Amino acid sequence: MGKKLAIIGAGNLGTRVSIELHNQGIEIIQIYSRTITSALTLGKLIGCKYVTNPKEITPEADIYIISVSDLAFNDLLKEVNFNNKLIAHTAGSIPMEELKKYSNNYGVFYPLQTFSKYREVDFSFVPMCIEGNTPENQQILMDLASVISKDVRIISSEQRKQLHLAAVFACNYVNHMYSIASEIVQQKKLPFDILLPLISETASKIFNIPPLEAQTGPAVRNDQNIIAEHLNMLNDNPKLAKIYNILSDSIYEYHKK
Amino acid sequence: MGKKLAIIGAGNLGTRVSIELHNQGIEIIQIYSRTITSALTLGKLIGCKYVTNPKEITPEADIYIISVSDLAFNDLLKEVNFNNKLIAHTAGSIPMEELKKYSNNYGVFYPLQTFSKYREVDFSFVPMCIEGNTPENQQILMDLASVISKDVRIISSEQRKQLHLAAVFACNYVNHMYSIASEIVQQKKLPFDILLPLISETASKIFNIPPLEAQTGPAVRNDQNIIAEHLNMLNDNPKLAKIYNILSDSIYEYHKK
Repeated sequence: MGKKLAIIGAGNLGTRVSIELHNQGIEIIQIYSRTITSALTLGKLIGCKYVTNPKEITPEADIYIISVSDLAFNDLLKEVNFNNKLIAHTAGSIPMEELKKYSNNYGVFYPLQTFSKYREVDFSFVPMCIEGNTPENQQILMDLASVISKDVRIISSEQRKQLHLAAVFACNYVNHMYSIASEIVQQKKLPFDILLPLISETASKIFNIPPLEAQTGPAVRNDQNIIAEHLNMLNDNPKLAKIYNILSDSIYEYHKK
Repeated sequence: MGKKLAIIGAGNLGTRVSIELHNQGIEIIQIYSRTITSALTLGKLIGCKYVTNPKEITPEADIYIISVSDLAFNDLLKEVNFNNKLIAHTAGSIPMEELKKYSNNYGVFYPLQTFSKYREVDFSFVPMCIEGNTPENQQILMDLASVISKDVRIISSEQRKQLHLAAVFACNYVNHMYSIASEIVQQKKLPFDILLPLISETASKIFNIPPLEAQTGPAVRNDQNIIAEHLNMLNDNPKLAKIYNILSDSIYEYHKK
């Protein structure tokens, strides 16, 4: 699309988005990261310059993709003069208007996905949630998103915040359940991979069956014998027992409705 | 393998296991279910007789697969005379020795998977957890399991109980997180399917990355701004807020270790 990008932030998301944009032919002229190893790794991967001092962020880019932690966000941006170029952040929970003070042209470029630095993701199915402060800026960001994904959507800041909250449940807490399950099987010297077909099927099911209907297990059957036995097994781990109790109660409540 | 089976129980698991055994050429001579519609549906699907009165359970089978809820288990079995034929239950949490009082030949035939009645499952990857009261009975059940799955394992009652507890986290609670996420997106008129690529990737990731390493999101980053904002969004739903708090704290604790 002929625009030059600079990437500000080389965390999990910044890294994967940059690599994908680069692979799809977008010109990235500079990476900024405050961490030298992150900057260097990503700079090498996509063959471009990197800086670790915000004062050295290039004025030459057409679009700045800002992918830094919400905590670092304002402290960093106030150090940079964007000369009213288009700036877009990639965060789930930051309202677009937060960018107003740093440029007259701004928007959001939020991929609804979980990223780890060294794991490739098929971007073509990743919902790209786009917002722009003007129709023109929105279109530029949609065009950029279309280079990497077939699923580009205009999503308001309000909706995006809601999606981010939903993603905490659908991804972060789900993954934490996997961590707990992994710990439980390993206590009896069983390999974690015995659970993989179950994990895979649980995720696949809801492509066809709404999750409320897909629910199985002792809590939805209200099988108090098994619930009591499981709680007994968790006797020496009050924190897990508490999670077990609350989630089993919650399943029961949802299905009483 | 030339053995005649009777199936006792036509719930989700009994139904899917029966259909799969039947499809792989195993002769099923009778279905028992206390529910006429379940008995009739499954009986028709695999073209065999069904009964709803335990007194009418056939004495002609070589193996009885018992797949009834843990609550109904003993009440039902004490009504049946198995003539010391091989009986095997399919439950995660019932010790094998519970079957001792009903036959001299008994064992366990537990598929570690989530089943819904009308959803096909690829059994070839389902871990079949087998136990037998004698080496001969164990071998018969392993042979039967091998007809439907490439992953047949000898698993003790103690290990199986632990697997069942792990499965509650890896499947039941995971699915409940999907239900909650679905509710959250629908509040802002967003379609649930926007979350599917995220859900799919979250499950796929841990085939290559241990779940502890795969963890992402505000809790593992200890991003208190976002956590506070999410809790604020859940202000009118104290039950969800409680789940959010407990699981975020738990993620933080796991990663402090």
